[in-house]
Amino acid sequence: MNGAEALLRTAANCGVDACFANPGTTELHLVEALDRVPSIRPVLALFEGVCTGAADGYARMTGRPALTVTHLGPGFANGLANVHNARRARTPMINLIGDHATWHLAADAPLASDIETLARPMSGWVRRTAGAASLSQDMLDAIDAAYGATSGGGAATLIIAQDHCWDESTMATTATATPARQQPTPAGDQVATATSAIRKAQLEGRKVFMVLGGSGLGAASKRVAARLGSKAGMTVLTGAPNGRADRGGHVPAIAAIPYFPEQAQPLLADAGLVVLAGAIDPVQFFGYPGGRSRVAPDGVPVVVLAQPGEDVLAGLGALAHELGVTMEAIGATDRGQGFDRPVVADGPLTLAGIGSMLWSRLPEGAVVVSEAISSSGQIEHEEWKAAPHTSLAGTTGGAIGGGLPLTVGAAVACPDRKVIDLQADGSAAYTVQSLWTMARESLDVVVVLLANRRYNILDIELKRSGMGAGLTGLTDLGRPDIGWAKIAEGFGVAGIVAEDSATFAKALERGLRESGPLLIEAMI
Amino acid sequence: MNGAEALLRTAANCGVDACFANPGTTELHLVEALDRVPSIRPVLALFEGVCTGAADGYARMTGRPALTVTHLGPGFANGLANVHNARRARTPMINLIGDHATWHLAADAPLASDIETLARPMSGWVRRTAGAASLSQDMLDAIDAAYGATSGGGAATLIIAQDHCWDESTMATTATATPARQQPTPAGDQVATATSAIRKAQLEGRKVFMVLGGSGLGAASKRVAARLGSKAGMTVLTGAPNGRADRGGHVPAIAAIPYFPEQAQPLLADAGLVVLAGAIDPVQFFGYPGGRSRVAPDGVPVVVLAQPGEDVLAGLGALAHELGVTMEAIGATDRGQGFDRPVVADGPLTLAGIGSMLWSRLPEGAVVVSEAISSSGQIEHEEWKAAPHTSLAGTTGGAIGGGLPLTVGAAVACPDRKVIDLQADGSAAYTVQSLWTMARESLDVVVVLLANRRYNILDIELKRSGMGAGLTGLTDLGRPDIGWAKIAEGFGVAGIVAEDSATFAKALERGLRESGPLLIEAMI
Repeated sequence: MNGAEALLRTAANCGVDACFANPGTTELHLVEALDRVPSIRPVLALFEGVCTGAADGYARMTGRPALTVTHLGPGFANGLANVHNARRARTPMINLIGDHATWHLAADAPLASDIETLARPMSGWVRRTAGAASLSQDMLDAIDAAYGATSGGGAATLIIAQDHCWDESTMATTATATPARQQPTPAGDQVATATSAIRKAQLEGRKVFMVLGGSGLGAASKRVAARLGSKAGMTVLTGAPNGRADRGGHVPAIAAIPYFPEQAQPLLADAGLVVLAGAIDPVQFFGYPGGRSRVAPDGVPVVVLAQPGEDVLAGLGALAHELGVTMEAIGATDRGQGFDRPVVADGPLTLAGIGSMLWSRLPEGAVVVSEAISSSGQIEHEEWKAAPHTSLAGTTGGAIGGGLPLTVGAAVACPDRKVIDLQADGSAAYTVQSLWTMARESLDVVVVLLANRRYNILDIELKRSGMGAGLTGLTDLGRPDIGWAKIAEGFGVAGIVAEDSATFAKALERGLRESGPLLIEAMI
Repeated sequence: MNGAEALLRTAANCGVDACFANPGTTELHLVEALDRVPSIRPVLALFEGVCTGAADGYARMTGRPALTVTHLGPGFANGLANVHNARRARTPMINLIGDHATWHLAADAPLASDIETLARPMSGWVRRTAGAASLSQDMLDAIDAAYGATSGGGAATLIIAQDHCWDESTMATTATATPARQQPTPAGDQVATATSAIRKAQLEGRKVFMVLGGSGLGAASKRVAARLGSKAGMTVLTGAPNGRADRGGHVPAIAAIPYFPEQAQPLLADAGLVVLAGAIDPVQFFGYPGGRSRVAPDGVPVVVLAQPGEDVLAGLGALAHELGVTMEAIGATDRGQGFDRPVVADGPLTLAGIGSMLWSRLPEGAVVVSEAISSSGQIEHEEWKAAPHTSLAGTTGGAIGGGLPLTVGAAVACPDRKVIDLQADGSAAYTVQSLWTMARESLDVVVVLLANRRYNILDIELKRSGMGAGLTGLTDLGRPDIGWAKIAEGFGVAGIVAEDSATFAKALERGLRESGPLLIEAMI
């Protein structure tokens, strides 16, 4: 077999079963080999940012890395923004980049560029292939790297010379069992240190804040953390955008640290200790004149119960044990308790109304992707009342354009779960090509396109900073209005314009009832 | 004034008058300052690849760099593919990237990344600002770098800390005159060496090939080169995708070196000398099994008459003088001689028919952007017969998605010239957001969207290499069909579907007659 096939068969043997691809000439041997490795599902995208964002969504839902296939430096560059988001979400991912044949590099042909340098800032692991014979081992190493066995985890990027793909190769004889994601248990002394720091702070009358992140956003962790909060006198919050969270049903609603400093900093103003449970010490998203980076005041001590990437539930459980906090039994049903019946809104469409209509109808086990940006607060206000579901943040790294691709990846990963994307309009434009892949793969998704026709977050920032109210030119998306339903139809996805609540509710019910993709352009 | 204003006022004083922007929070002081520097036209795009590609098109038409404004590492990464194309076209461009405030970098906030490393592969010059006081000087240096005074020219990338934008600053007191693009005259001994190499080759009965590139694709250079070809016994060809070429009217039709090795290499098989006039020694776009990089056979000597970036016309003129070749007068009119009247095609729509209809109607002075990929040969076959016009290649660096943004930039640069984009469908998808900017700015463009519903170039490559005919999965854009006219309308651009020649001719005539953008979805 050739190198390309050895590479892909190795991936398949390790349980890799999805490949989000936008190939070019240097990847055609990979394309051909995919045809002979049927256990890997090839998913074509019209733009590379769709591939990388979809791989992120896929891995957040399955815990397993997907492959991406992109074309030399410029093609991979198009995918970098969503590799950045994945890096911040600590998502495993394996990027395969076809490069020129080794002997062709010296020619500096038009498409040549320094791919390794481009890849490094967003990748935890980067390698250039050395020959066809080692491609299978390269894949094993990439999988190890993505799972975090040999690096911090995240994106493993393999730059594959085209001649290594077409040359003869064999399979590596080393282990081909499916590796498990590395999620170490917090060390005992780490838990002991955290416990005594908490006890000491409370003895001294200092307020204790616990910040949850990483796997600490799962249902069980949230229950333990909330119980710790109420029984052991801590304020529990969630940190900056996390990859995945359980919400709804009996999952406690734990407030997130607000985005803007004037809301976040007062919240932690009287903190006497910050306990990190899978989160980093909270920092502001941006720096502002006269401001500071850290959310907690200078000098407030920090103690780590669980590092990001560690098993937060194990850490929380150990802490509860140390503090003598026992768990409460919960009811047999996990069905959300917040709504008696589907909310029937009437009148004008509002963000809160969209939220009520959605959360009261949300099917159990749904996946909700949120890239609602400035709309997120109002629309997510009642999310905790919905049936139990999984929430994926679209902006873990702040790179805009994650929502639609994450939706693609989550829907490929979970064909039995409805995937709903709460999607800001400005952000949707970056990776609008995702809609075509939704149609091509008949993905079971509803895109709620929140059309406020502005880069509203920028308007808010301009107002906050006292900069000109007249500066509408570069934040206004309303000249011309974007017709999202039309664009969706152009890409093969049914589109409905909803200008009032009744129309929205009807469209939403159709989207939840029928299989396949639907976009609802919600005029807000 | 603050740093942002000092920076932009310096740019304005140096003749910079366009800014293609997709800003975020870290660029808001630049946005605000743009409002106070009215001689710089801000053009908003929904995606960063539109900004960088438009800056490329703008500079190819004006010779002057435009600004781009993008948001930290991920935002700039979205623009890199078209910076790569611009690099290969040797286009001057100034990329302004807003980064976090200096004191916020250590916080490693979600959007932080290593921007310098990302920027370096595609930029000729990269700098991180040192303080508000030096921002004005930074801009002077960036302009010098873009023009090639202090580097190889091309993209100058300035990473601007947000606090340097909001801090107080002053204007630099050094020169603020508009600099000129550096285009050195080829050295006399370089011309002498080329002349004697040509004479020696011809004395020895070796065939001489001249390859034109860079500024050698201008009308006057082409005339001198063609005259040299016929009078001094050289075969004149054009090299791999060049940024800008004059075509039509009395501009001689000079054949390009074909794309595929099996066509290109036989053409130069009996070469005894390759003379480079603004081109590099021709290499294949990709390497193939058993193939080679160079188009000319190994061992064929090369001599440089003019380096890429040098004044090719001066070199050609000097060579003509040395070889005793004088120029012929041309007629007073530059109107194309190839068509007596507009071609009226009937029946099914073909690429050749689209070409005849277009070239026979092309207004003098039009700008034709070509990213037709696999359709380019047939559609451009009769281009030489059209009225004189300027041609911009969409794939100078082989990065797909250049055509629509180049069209935006050329139309902003040349409001009095009709801009026509011959646009492959697969490529259009990468930067489809360009359509919105065309509508927003009422740009006078006609997009001829060539809908073959395939990544046809990949199918051709698969067939050439003998790889599976059944491998349609990842090259087929027809499941579902993309409705380009609908997508155009969604972005605010009128769209017409043309399934036959008569409809296409009517749509084309409307596009040429009316002002503003039109997309014709040509079903081929």
